[in-house]
Amino acid sequence: MKRYTIIVAAGSGLRMGAPVPKQFLAVCGKPILMHTLQRFHDYDRHMELIVVLNEDYRAYWTELCEQYEFVLPHRIVSGGRERFHSVKNAVLSIGELEAVVGIHDAVRPMVSLETLARCFDGALEFGCAVPTVVVNDSVRLIDGNENRSVDRSKVRVVQTPQCFRLSLLNRAFEQEFDPLFTDDASVVEALGEKIHLVEGNRENIKITTAGDLRTAELLLA
Amino acid sequence: MKRYTIIVAAGSGLRMGAPVPKQFLAVCGKPILMHTLQRFHDYDRHMELIVVLNEDYRAYWTELCEQYEFVLPHRIVSGGRERFHSVKNAVLSIGELEAVVGIHDAVRPMVSLETLARCFDGALEFGCAVPTVVVNDSVRLIDGNENRSVDRSKVRVVQTPQCFRLSLLNRAFEQEFDPLFTDDASVVEALGEKIHLVEGNRENIKITTAGDLRTAELLLA
Repeated sequence: MKRYTIIVAAGSGLRMGAPVPKQFLAVCGKPILMHTLQRFHDYDRHMELIVVLNEDYRAYWTELCEQYEFVLPHRIVSGGRERFHSVKNAVLSIGELEAVVGIHDAVRPMVSLETLARCFDGALEFGCAVPTVVVNDSVRLIDGNENRSVDRSKVRVVQTPQCFRLSLLNRAFEQEFDPLFTDDASVVEALGEKIHLVEGNRENIKITTAGDLRTAELLLA
Repeated sequence: MKRYTIIVAAGSGLRMGAPVPKQFLAVCGKPILMHTLQRFHDYDRHMELIVVLNEDYRAYWTELCEQYEFVLPHRIVSGGRERFHSVKNAVLSIGELEAVVGIHDAVRPMVSLETLARCFDGALEFGCAVPTVVVNDSVRLIDGNENRSVDRSKVRVVQTPQCFRLSLLNRAFEQEFDPLFTDDASVVEALGEKIHLVEGNRENIKITTAGDLRTAELLLA
């Protein structure tokens, strides 16, 4: 079955104090988003790659591709108000009856080929597959003014790509937007679907801080 | 009030496939445990440092100190069966009526001086203070064969040093050992005490994997 990946790069967050959103920052000689696209292409060179960009950065991205002579084929879709709307735009742009679709954060270039295989294979088999990792530290849950320890063996930190059958995604994104949709799995879960978890890889961090950027520089070298 | 820190280095875990437990591995020119001790000394040079070691590694540590000309004053206490027993041995070795006591993982050399101030000040004011950080990723809780997303704004990942008034620790470690004691805060919590949370620092990771070791090499440079 044909595979698609939607790379969500619509964020315009400038939290790191950088002049451009972090997906455009160069790590090991090229923008993070190019590393991410390359990783998916390395996993399956027949996969169709869809990049969701904020309109304001569309021309800038084209310029970057020219500057870095980045020729890996991909299609651009415009971002929406929230992640939900961005992903919905991309899902609606897929003209197939059925496919396996991954949805991935642009700032996670360190996803391993093994994680990609587990996610796409899992979605083909179970309808959806979401990569997670365990936590090495104790975990507490805040409950009003109190907090309590939770059994950390029951806690999973969720990564991407979150992978789904296209037919399931189409149904999920027909729903009204809800602020409780914190990721794509939560949109599918709202349909009453069970979320199938697979093993992610610890290096597959979401590059958020300057420290993460230094870690990425090291791991992608 | 006088400050003490118990550095728990009793683990003999060889999970990284290294020839010695990870607290003895060299990062940026010296064993991790030496970086950790130095950090606490930098925060308060009058603080008394107690290192809990497995008997089998006592001579080895003495050798390392000679080899690296490490002269920072510290006292050695023998480890017990579980972390609970190791920490208890160290707590009982403190001959004071009252003090503020930090309990810290040997393999967390990247704790910041700001985190240390928040923990020791918090314990003085509230009786106990535990450093935590928020999670940037979605979080799920496993519940039998099911799993559900939890509001990640309510989740805190717990670090060390977990700091307490000595009188509180003395009462806590009089309790019988319970396998549910996953960290020192959970021992104190079993008394019915409320755990006061303070902000940790993201770099203050527990060095567990080879990847963490590379991150530490970068951050301690």
